[in-house]
Amino acid sequence: MDKVLNYTESQKERYLEELIDFLKIPSISDLPEHKQDVLDAADWIADNIKKAGMENVRMEETPGHPIVYGEWLNAGADKPTVLIYGHYDVQPVDPLDEWDTPPFEPTIKEDGKIYARGTCDDKAQLFVHVKALEAILKETGTLPVNVKILFEGEEEAGSNHLDEFIYANKELLAADIALVSDTKWFTEGLPSISYALRGMCYVEVTVNGPFQDLHSGTYGGAVDNPVNVLCTMIAKLKDEYGRIAIPGFYDDVLPLDEEERAGFKELPFDHKQYCDYLKISNTKGEYGYTVVEQTWARPTLDVNGITGGFQGEGAKTIIPAKASAKISMRLVPHQKFEDIADKVKYHLQAIAPPTVDVEVDVLHGGNPVMAQRNGEAMNAAMASLEEAFGVKPVFMRAGGSIPVTGTFQDALDAEPILMGLGLPSDNIHGPNEKFDLRNFYGGIKASVLFFEKYGNKH
Amino acid sequence: MDKVLNYTESQKERYLEELIDFLKIPSISDLPEHKQDVLDAADWIADNIKKAGMENVRMEETPGHPIVYGEWLNAGADKPTVLIYGHYDVQPVDPLDEWDTPPFEPTIKEDGKIYARGTCDDKAQLFVHVKALEAILKETGTLPVNVKILFEGEEEAGSNHLDEFIYANKELLAADIALVSDTKWFTEGLPSISYALRGMCYVEVTVNGPFQDLHSGTYGGAVDNPVNVLCTMIAKLKDEYGRIAIPGFYDDVLPLDEEERAGFKELPFDHKQYCDYLKISNTKGEYGYTVVEQTWARPTLDVNGITGGFQGEGAKTIIPAKASAKISMRLVPHQKFEDIADKVKYHLQAIAPPTVDVEVDVLHGGNPVMAQRNGEAMNAAMASLEEAFGVKPVFMRAGGSIPVTGTFQDALDAEPILMGLGLPSDNIHGPNEKFDLRNFYGGIKASVLFFEKYGNKH
Repeated sequence: MDKVLNYTESQKERYLEELIDFLKIPSISDLPEHKQDVLDAADWIADNIKKAGMENVRMEETPGHPIVYGEWLNAGADKPTVLIYGHYDVQPVDPLDEWDTPPFEPTIKEDGKIYARGTCDDKAQLFVHVKALEAILKETGTLPVNVKILFEGEEEAGSNHLDEFIYANKELLAADIALVSDTKWFTEGLPSISYALRGMCYVEVTVNGPFQDLHSGTYGGAVDNPVNVLCTMIAKLKDEYGRIAIPGFYDDVLPLDEEERAGFKELPFDHKQYCDYLKISNTKGEYGYTVVEQTWARPTLDVNGITGGFQGEGAKTIIPAKASAKISMRLVPHQKFEDIADKVKYHLQAIAPPTVDVEVDVLHGGNPVMAQRNGEAMNAAMASLEEAFGVKPVFMRAGGSIPVTGTFQDALDAEPILMGLGLPSDNIHGPNEKFDLRNFYGGIKASVLFFEKYGNKH
Repeated sequence: MDKVLNYTESQKERYLEELIDFLKIPSISDLPEHKQDVLDAADWIADNIKKAGMENVRMEETPGHPIVYGEWLNAGADKPTVLIYGHYDVQPVDPLDEWDTPPFEPTIKEDGKIYARGTCDDKAQLFVHVKALEAILKETGTLPVNVKILFEGEEEAGSNHLDEFIYANKELLAADIALVSDTKWFTEGLPSISYALRGMCYVEVTVNGPFQDLHSGTYGGAVDNPVNVLCTMIAKLKDEYGRIAIPGFYDDVLPLDEEERAGFKELPFDHKQYCDYLKISNTKGEYGYTVVEQTWARPTLDVNGITGGFQGEGAKTIIPAKASAKISMRLVPHQKFEDIADKVKYHLQAIAPPTVDVEVDVLHGGNPVMAQRNGEAMNAAMASLEEAFGVKPVFMRAGGSIPVTGTFQDALDAEPILMGLGLPSDNIHGPNEKFDLRNFYGGIKASVLFFEKYGNKH
């Protein structure tokens, strides 16, 4: 193993150059004008995993962006199979004017971090494992485990075709565990593994009123205003205690157990620092829960975007013809995405006044995930992080959603191991997204160790 | 008079050509990129009133767009002075894709109407009086009344500098009546004079939350969402009976008198036709009032535009850093704009939660107006409309706002005579704005007759 780790140490410069090449590709999956860029990123990473020594590397077409697949299955039937998941697509970059450096010109600053869209989420994180596999194969000619790679290009657009692909290729993808690096540490310097992820139900609500924008003087007072209506409907979705007021919404929510609550309370969370960083005077969440609990273990309802009527400078006096909002709910075990989607659609129609026409589109969703906090793979992952970073890792949950991890559990019976390497300050989905190069290099080391430790248990 | 009317009949083609030239200028006062266009429109109309025979024609500079002034004061001190007000600026044109013909390429269709932005509101309407004055001067060498012309270029941007100009030039503008054609008939073929206009209070509310857009997975559940907050605040501004829930809002509202309510009930209003035209299933206004009463004599609160967070196609999972809404209230006698603005600002701050920072900017406003339904000028106006169009006119109110008419009352003691010529279907402020050419030519005739009748009473 030392040989492999020495090799990775000698290749740091090349690893970084390659990462920069990868980050330069603006693979924004949710914007149609970036379709070719997404394809270019798929080509790039497919080529890279091939060079790393993966076999049968190929693009699997979907109705959307392609899935990149590769495998190395020569460890033997007695060795476990690790399915490595990541996504090579990235979020949109708006508001662009809030970026200090261009999002697709990766920039390493004095803080030892690399700034670019998609660096933490998820290009650098998936790249860690590719470089680890490359190093082990290069130096030892073999791998301690069987490996399958599944990198998708639609994670930031809802992973719309991934589930279908997985269910249609259960044999191809069969694995003991799903290794996913798309989460973050509790704080800088404190390696962490998330054992639960929230799920997601993302809807778009459109309120249609009169056939066109109307003069607010002529019609104001008699014609129901779609923006006012939409606001009133949204206001009704939460009560004054921060609870979501959709009937049946909490039916399947698993309460936190005492051990979890106690563990969370020991984490170094500073409420004032949290508020100061966000530049808010206080938090506001569900009554009776701490911030950590609110963001990890309780469901949410947030308007991600709203639009209606005149958006320009100055004043225009209209009753808008329509208004719409993108609303997403983060789900927790054991809520089910489809059940929540049904309840939300039903409730929005139930509270819609008869003067307007309300449409609800479910854009995407996924079930929450919960993994065991023990087992060989989890133990190997915790030990590898400790050895690579010299700090005992902690267990945490994650507020975000990686819907495919639920599918790995359901379709493949593969336990997710969320060996994330991001930091809370990495600002994924926002401007100036970044990734700590110490976590990049340390992550490669941890990945090498993980394959070794997990394989050697068998 | 016959001579004059015969002359106007002979000049119809030229009048239309000139009107088309005027309409081609995209004088959108509220969009900075059209500043030069607004200036061009001012130049154009100044030149035209000069050619019509007005004297001392000039541009009066303001910090915004210029005011065009002209006068003809040779009728003698025993004759009344008519101040003619109009505005040469127009509304923005978005949504542009809903226009059947380009907004600044005036198009006469088979229905005998001319389609262009600003045709009804207000270019054709003010032009009617210019052509009437031109005809009388051309054929008789004199006018039956003294005339002052005041055409502004900021009506659609809030008339921000007009009041100051009027108060600073009370002597220059002194007049017995203010003749304003910027309102509409109750229905096609039924000439109407509005004796009351609603006022306006237009505010923009901005809710500022965290310092930037946040990942809704990481922070969702703990950080108050500015869009949700804004929606909740807006929802609180009206109660379930359609009444505005701002403390003190109705304090100065003048109740409708029985004569008005009776008169309104006799107007040919068809509720089903109204809804069918608007493509809505039903109206929704303040409980206890008819649609006519709701739109003419009761105050309103409408969101004219709302924006916050992700507006693109697809899904983005953020807690937006901020959200804002443009909200306008139509006021009725005897509400006062400044009093309402204070109440609205106070109330919005009062209902703002402590987790966000709320800003309220008052963009513009004006007091409602109410004129006497008798008197020489009003009688002359009613008689002129009847003679020009062959139909007995009706009295109505107007739901819209022409804030300057209140200033004419307050600063100049000039009674407003709202001899509007628009039709309810003219779609001002919306796409495919138009004006009926019968009302254009008939309006010129009515204007000629009005100056004659009003002047001859003295």
